Amino acid sequence: MTGSKSTAEQYTRYKLKMQKIADVKNAMAVLGWDQETYLPEKGAAFRGQQLTTLSTIAHELFTEEDLGTLLHELHNHSDLDALQQKNIALSLEDYEKNKKYPAAFVAEMSQTTNECYHAWIKARKANDYTIFAPALSKMITLKKQETAILGYEGHPYNALLNEYETGATTTMLDSIFEDVKKALSPLLAKIEARPQVDKDFLLKHYDRDNQWKLGIDLLRDMGYDLQAGRQDISEHPFTTSFNPLDVRVTTRIDENDFGNMTWSCIHEGGHALYEQGLPTDQYGLPCGEATSLGIHESQSRLWENNVGRSLQFWKHHYPRLQLQFSDNLAAVPLNSFYQAINQVRPSLIRTEADELTYHFHIMIRYEIEKGLMDGSISANDLQHTWNEYYRQYLHVTVPDDVHGVLQDIHWSHGSFGYFPTYSLGSFYAAQFFTTAQKQVPGLDDAIATGNYHPLLEWLRSNIHPFGRFYTSGELCKKVTGKELQFSYFMDYAEKKYASIYNH
Amino acid sequence: MTGSKSTAEQYTRYKLKMQKIADVKNAMAVLGWDQETYLPEKGAAFRGQQLTTLSTIAHELFTEEDLGTLLHELHNHSDLDALQQKNIALSLEDYEKNKKYPAAFVAEMSQTTNECYHAWIKARKANDYTIFAPALSKMITLKKQETAILGYEGHPYNALLNEYETGATTTMLDSIFEDVKKALSPLLAKIEARPQVDKDFLLKHYDRDNQWKLGIDLLRDMGYDLQAGRQDISEHPFTTSFNPLDVRVTTRIDENDFGNMTWSCIHEGGHALYEQGLPTDQYGLPCGEATSLGIHESQSRLWENNVGRSLQFWKHHYPRLQLQFSDNLAAVPLNSFYQAINQVRPSLIRTEADELTYHFHIMIRYEIEKGLMDGSISANDLQHTWNEYYRQYLHVTVPDDVHGVLQDIHWSHGSFGYFPTYSLGSFYAAQFFTTAQKQVPGLDDAIATGNYHPLLEWLRSNIHPFGRFYTSGELCKKVTGKELQFSYFMDYAEKKYASIYNH
Repeated sequence: MTGSKSTAEQYTRYKLKMQKIADVKNAMAVLGWDQETYLPEKGAAFRGQQLTTLSTIAHELFTEEDLGTLLHELHNHSDLDALQQKNIALSLEDYEKNKKYPAAFVAEMSQTTNECYHAWIKARKANDYTIFAPALSKMITLKKQETAILGYEGHPYNALLNEYETGATTTMLDSIFEDVKKALSPLLAKIEARPQVDKDFLLKHYDRDNQWKLGIDLLRDMGYDLQAGRQDISEHPFTTSFNPLDVRVTTRIDENDFGNMTWSCIHEGGHALYEQGLPTDQYGLPCGEATSLGIHESQSRLWENNVGRSLQFWKHHYPRLQLQFSDNLAAVPLNSFYQAINQVRPSLIRTEADELTYHFHIMIRYEIEKGLMDGSISANDLQHTWNEYYRQYLHVTVPDDVHGVLQDIHWSHGSFGYFPTYSLGSFYAAQFFTTAQKQVPGLDDAIATGNYHPLLEWLRSNIHPFGRFYTSGELCKKVTGKELQFSYFMDYAEKKYASIYNH
Repeated sequence: MTGSKSTAEQYTRYKLKMQKIADVKNAMAVLGWDQETYLPEKGAAFRGQQLTTLSTIAHELFTEEDLGTLLHELHNHSDLDALQQKNIALSLEDYEKNKKYPAAFVAEMSQTTNECYHAWIKARKANDYTIFAPALSKMITLKKQETAILGYEGHPYNALLNEYETGATTTMLDSIFEDVKKALSPLLAKIEARPQVDKDFLLKHYDRDNQWKLGIDLLRDMGYDLQAGRQDISEHPFTTSFNPLDVRVTTRIDENDFGNMTWSCIHEGGHALYEQGLPTDQYGLPCGEATSLGIHESQSRLWENNVGRSLQFWKHHYPRLQLQFSDNLAAVPLNSFYQAINQVRPSLIRTEADELTYHFHIMIRYEIEKGLMDGSISANDLQHTWNEYYRQYLHVTVPDDVHGVLQDIHWSHGSFGYFPTYSLGSFYAAQFFTTAQKQVPGLDDAIATGNYHPLLEWLRSNIHPFGRFYTSGELCKKVTGKELQFSYFMDYAEKKYASIYNH
């Protein structure tokens, strides 16, 4: 602690207030984790009420006048060191953003989200977008209001993008997705012209317990600390953190699909390593929080794709896998396995897409969200626009709404601006991993022997410890010397898939 | 809702305030449950901090001036119905009790409890009471102060007893434990004079998974709703409730002791049935809470002992058990099994005691706590007094402190007045069960066929639905027509053990 006695005291008061809020939010996270893993079915209603109460309390604590006064007093105070100043600046920003929302808007948004989510559930059951459209239309109107409340420069969508990825703009994303279209489309065309690789053996029966053991071993090998976390089963895999010393992952197991558990496990492991690598002494403060969704996703995708779908990764693990699942894999050579796990094939469902066509799924959602925010697309056009985009970019015909515009939960929650962070994550991952390969001698060789220490060390020095001290853009520049560039991903993809599809 | 518009509105405000507090406390219960079941070891420190924060928030909410004003306004309001009036009266009582504690006392108690608990842990490790004595002495001083803060009539210990069992007094307990001594001692002497029954076969190897299945089946058979609860493993079995639709139990499994899991499971099942039977529409209000620890314990012990250690219970379950654990039980007749699970033998450890000698363990703690509160015993005498009592009443020689005065966690937590509720629970259980047998035709026959519906129905009509509307004393009189009488327990014990020990 630097500075005069009274500044130090004030900073401590600020820290305690923020930690109290974090405690409440993390209690919510525990209740949320329990809800997805162990909650008995009849307990759902009261659990919802308990979560609402905690959320209200957290909101009350974070909008207290006293906290605002303290933040203003501490803001730009020269007695504070750089880390402390950054915490104060970011907390003040968060505080003032919170204060911008009129109470009536918050109440209406809460009610509309609830309505919209239930309409989405109902529409999915009936496989009929028109059931969802009126509620979604209301939500879109509110989100437009929100862009005005938050304020923005340029495109109104920027206000929402900024919520998930500080500094992201349509200018930046237009340019990136233009690159995606220009560079990825020809690669996909080349791949489509080649004979398809076989992956049928991945869809045979893989024993549940053996899969579970494999997953735990992979997490441990990656460096995930199982004394500061645990894995459980849930319907949708996720990572949640209650503090850097209690970061939990979940997975699901499909006995007829080897890939389902395996890469979701590595993916969540990557998220979890980031959370476990955040500084414990910044608990509750901005510099103790993940900097953005894009960077979070870069960590999960780096491990899932750049590491977990690489040939060197399986050089080490495949012999063990052949023993563990010998009925299915004993006769399959490593290279066939490697090809199978990287099969590229345009498809309808985002969450099942390969790592190349995936970005067209995101681009489509990005274009739609942008159009919804500037009014060039309305809720009523959505189904048509969606299906048209899928025909145009992925050359697939959407057979019904469940396999089309109703597939994702995000819009029903009011999450607009979230999707692009998935692609940003992949592109950051490629740029970071290329940099690590350059900076860490023998990195690929280490991976080929199952040694991930050098990689984790690099991530722990370069990415994990800063929290929100750097924005994603600043972090990228600091670590790689450059702004985010799509070419890193493209170079990785060109090289990898040329070898897989022999084109 | 009865009464004028404005009273109704005020009552709704009161209810919402109480439910908000309940939400926070139940969130704490979830965090506590997680701590005992799934928390990764490194997560303990932050979890402690999160629990402290929630506890502070709950305390702040419950001591709000606004709540006090509202309670005073609603108190004795004739527009409210009887249930509403009771809720207001009890909440006001709780509120005013809370207000009595000076902040300095609360802080000192919190610090002393922490100190005392760690001293107890340390003393246990070293097997040396003198390490615990100074911290305990401080705790006793504080508990004496607490009796003055709370106020009492008669013996100061009454103030503490009342915290766990509204209306319990030393006058009542002196009389009950006098009965225990007078009536139970001769029975124990008779039993000791008879040949001991064999229970070695209960300590053979019982497979973990089979035990787990048995436990779940027993819980389901009892009527525990597994859609409104679940069982997990923890070091010490416990029941916790987040609301009547989410009541969880835990158990532990010792593969070399059949009884460990079985009766802890039935015991916790009894607690859980009470919690699942509380009215959901009284969530957060006194009439939605268990009335006392004694009544809670009556429910666990009624199932554990009056039902779960009865011959008719095992008439139904034993054949299945013999199949499930055939190596150990195929050659053991039902009657030998029944004798074994009811073996009576004076021992050193309370939690391992049989259902008869158990009450001497409690009586000893009762006498000691009473003495500590009136100053006739001090922390320094404790080890000597303890060992002397064990020699006198249980005829056993305490070999060391871990098997003596250091065995229970309660005093290190500042829980004085808690122990007597264990015995009260057994005595209420006997009185309730005898009444049920009289009022429900064919109750024993139903139990002998594994049908617990009639019993659960009776409990659900007579005990569970009232919450704190009746005190334990009022409830006992309402249900059985009489005040609590030890003779019910004694009649049960005489009859049961005469048949087991053929005396």
